[in-house]
Amino acid sequence: MKAEILTIGDEILIGQITNTNSVWIAQQLNLCGIRVVHMASVADEESAILESLNAASKRADVVFITGGLGPTKDDITKKTFAEFFDAELEMNTEVLEHVTSFFIKRNREINDVNRQQALVPKGCTVIRNANGTAPGMWMKKNNTVFISMPGVPYEMKAMMTDLVLPKLRTENDLPNIYHKTVLTQGVGESVIAEIIEKWEDDLAVKKIKLAYLPQPGIVRLRLSAEGKDLTELKSRVDTEVKTLVPLIENYIYGFENYGEEMPTLEKIVSELLRERKQTLSLAESCTGGYISSLITSLSGASEIFKGGIVPYTNTAKHELLQVDEKTFETAGAVSKECVEQLAANVLKKFDSDFSIAVSGIAGPSGGTPDKPVGLVWIAVASRKKVLAMKFQFGDHRQRNIVMTANTALNLLRKFILR
Amino acid sequence: MKAEILTIGDEILIGQITNTNSVWIAQQLNLCGIRVVHMASVADEESAILESLNAASKRADVVFITGGLGPTKDDITKKTFAEFFDAELEMNTEVLEHVTSFFIKRNREINDVNRQQALVPKGCTVIRNANGTAPGMWMKKNNTVFISMPGVPYEMKAMMTDLVLPKLRTENDLPNIYHKTVLTQGVGESVIAEIIEKWEDDLAVKKIKLAYLPQPGIVRLRLSAEGKDLTELKSRVDTEVKTLVPLIENYIYGFENYGEEMPTLEKIVSELLRERKQTLSLAESCTGGYISSLITSLSGASEIFKGGIVPYTNTAKHELLQVDEKTFETAGAVSKECVEQLAANVLKKFDSDFSIAVSGIAGPSGGTPDKPVGLVWIAVASRKKVLAMKFQFGDHRQRNIVMTANTALNLLRKFILR
Repeated sequence: MKAEILTIGDEILIGQITNTNSVWIAQQLNLCGIRVVHMASVADEESAILESLNAASKRADVVFITGGLGPTKDDITKKTFAEFFDAELEMNTEVLEHVTSFFIKRNREINDVNRQQALVPKGCTVIRNANGTAPGMWMKKNNTVFISMPGVPYEMKAMMTDLVLPKLRTENDLPNIYHKTVLTQGVGESVIAEIIEKWEDDLAVKKIKLAYLPQPGIVRLRLSAEGKDLTELKSRVDTEVKTLVPLIENYIYGFENYGEEMPTLEKIVSELLRERKQTLSLAESCTGGYISSLITSLSGASEIFKGGIVPYTNTAKHELLQVDEKTFETAGAVSKECVEQLAANVLKKFDSDFSIAVSGIAGPSGGTPDKPVGLVWIAVASRKKVLAMKFQFGDHRQRNIVMTANTALNLLRKFILR
Repeated sequence: MKAEILTIGDEILIGQITNTNSVWIAQQLNLCGIRVVHMASVADEESAILESLNAASKRADVVFITGGLGPTKDDITKKTFAEFFDAELEMNTEVLEHVTSFFIKRNREINDVNRQQALVPKGCTVIRNANGTAPGMWMKKNNTVFISMPGVPYEMKAMMTDLVLPKLRTENDLPNIYHKTVLTQGVGESVIAEIIEKWEDDLAVKKIKLAYLPQPGIVRLRLSAEGKDLTELKSRVDTEVKTLVPLIENYIYGFENYGEEMPTLEKIVSELLRERKQTLSLAESCTGGYISSLITSLSGASEIFKGGIVPYTNTAKHELLQVDEKTFETAGAVSKECVEQLAANVLKKFDSDFSIAVSGIAGPSGGTPDKPVGLVWIAVASRKKVLAMKFQFGDHRQRNIVMTANTALNLLRKFILR
C-alpha cells in the first residue's frame, strides 16, 4: 500500500513552523507496513491544493492531509476538499452536537463561525475529533482514500491512533514490517559500530536492516524486516536482538517493541519506582527544572514524585538545601561535594526513597579553564547511599540540558536496580 | 519569483529525520522575497525524482533540491539530474582538485568512489562546496533554474548563503515579501475573528494577507504583503497593524518583526526583568517544573532567576512553602488561597522581586465534579501585592501544562508592567 502525506498551510511554506506532523505520520505508517512514496506541502490556495490532490491520486492508495481546517477565513481545506469530490457541504448533526458540547464544557459561547465546523462534504465518513472542533474527513475517489485531519498535532495524533489506523488495518490486507529497537545511553554511534561490527556484517544475509538513530545522550538501534508472515519476521528479528544484547549490555536501558511507543527514560524510571512503591525528589541546578518537567509530563506522576527544588543560586543551595557554604569556596558549586550534599539533603527534605541532584555549566557562557562549558556533576541517592559522577558534554546549552537529564535518569535507573 | 523545494532521501519518507533543510531554505527565500509555492520529499528513486523535477518545472522559476549527493550507491540524485537534462556526466577538474585537497588536508586517502564526486552533468555551473566533497549544481531547463545541493545541513547552508542567494539576487529583479506578526495570549481564534471581522474584511482590497497561527494558549496573527518596494510594503502592513492593535490590545504580548526570530513569552518576561534588574522565583505544582525549564533554557537565566520549588504533595506545599494545613481542608490545594500563599512564600524564600505560583489538575485523571481536569489557579506576586486568577483549560495533560505556563508568564508580564 502506497501513501502520500500532504500538508496544507502558508506557515509551512514560509518556514515559520517545522512540519512535524509529516514526520510523525510517516513513522506511524512505516510501523504499519504502509510505504510513504511522496510528501508535499502547499499553501492555503485552492488551485495548489486541487493540483496536489489530483497528483496524489495518481501516486498513492491513501492520502493523509493535515491542516487548513480551522474556523477562520484563511483555512480553505474543507471547501476545496468538497470541490475535489464534487460534493456539497452539509451540516452533520453529530458533529454539531460534539462542537456544541465542546463549548458548553469549557463555559465558552458558541458562535456561527464555530457552528460551521460541523459542515462536511456530502458522502464523507466523519472521523471524530476527541480533542477539538474540526472533524476529520474520510472520502474515496477512484481507488484512492483521502483522509483530511486538523493540523493541530495532538488532535491529529489522537485521530490517527484511535480511528484512522485501525480502520485502515481492518479494510486492507497490509504486508508486515516488524521492528524492534534497542535503546542505549552513554555511548556514541561510532563506538557502538565498532563493537558490533561483525554482528552487523551478518545482517544483510538475514535480510534484516539496521538503523542507528541518535538523540542527545542516546543511540537507538532499530532492527527491521519486511515480509508476509509476522511470526516469522518476529522470530528472525528477535533472534538477532538476542545475539546483539550481550555485546552492548551495559549501555542498554530498554527496548522499543513493535507497535508500542518508545519508552522514554523518565517513563522507565517512573515505572520502576511505581512497581517498588518508592518515590523520587530532585535538586536541579543546571537542568533548571527540566528533569522535573519530564517526570511530571507523565500521567500519575504524583504517585512516585514528591517534588523538586531548583536552587539556581549558591544562596538557594545553602539556605534551601543546606549545602555547606565552605563547599562553594573550596570545591565550587559544580563539584562532587556540592551534588552529594544536594542529593542527600533534597531526599531528606521531601522524605523520598531516591533523589537526583545535578550541577553544571550549561553554557554558552560561564565556563573557565578549570570548569569548561559542558562540565556536569550528577549525584543519585537512596536513604543509605550517595553516588556522584562527573561528565563532560558539549558547547550547546539546550543539548547539554537534555544530555544531563538522560544521563541522570539512566544513572538513577541503574542505581535503583543495583 | 516562485520557488519549489525538493528533498530527496528515504530517511525523510520513513520519518527517521525531520526535514529541517526545507524549513531553513523557506525562511531564507522568504526573506529575499522569493515565494515558495510547493515543497516535496521523495525517495532515492529515479522515477520519483524525475516526476518531481518535471512537476516542479511547471510550477516554479527556481527549484532547490537537497540530498542524495553522497558517494554511496543509494544516492542517485546526480545521475538522475544528468538524465533529466539529457547531459552526460563529465569529470570537472576544479572539483577534482577540491576533493583531492579536501582529503589531503584531513590525512585521509582518496579512492575511486571519492573521485566520482567530481563528476558533474555537462553544461552545469558548479557551486563550490566549502565544507564537503559533493559539489552543488546549477542548471537551467526551459525557464526554470534547478539547484542541487547536498543534504548535510551545514554544507547546504554555507552554499546557499555564500553563493546561491547572491547569484539569484544578481540575476533576477526580485519582489519583496514583508510581514509582521501580532502575538496574542488568552483568547481563541474564533473570538479574535469576531472582534476583528470588519478590519479583516478590508484587508483584501489593501492586498494584505492575514494568517491565524494558533499554539497552546497563544494565537499569532501574521500580516503579509508582496510587492516591489519594501518601504511601501512596510508602511502598508504597519499601518494595518496600527489599526488592528487597539481592537485586541488587551491580548497582545508582543510582535514578531520582519527578519527577526519570534520572541517567546519566557524571553519577553526575562528581558523585562533584566532591564529592571529584578528577579523571579517559581512555585509550580501542576506545571511540575516546566515554567522553570522554559526560563532556564535561555542563556544568562541566572541573572534574573533565583530558583523554584515544585511542591508536588500537600506535605511539600506545607513544609517547604508554609501553606497553612487548614487550607487543604477548607479550600483544597487547587484554590485561590493555596496559590496566594505559595506565591507570597516562594518570593520570601528566594528573596526575589516577583514570583509565580500555579496549582491545578493537569489530568487526565484526578478531576472531580467540583474541580474538573483542566482547572488551574495561577498567582503572581511582588513584594507588595499578590494577584490570583482561575482558569479552565482542557482535557489534555501536556497541553494544559503548556497553556498554564504561557498564561502564567503573560499574567506576570502584565503584572510587572502595571
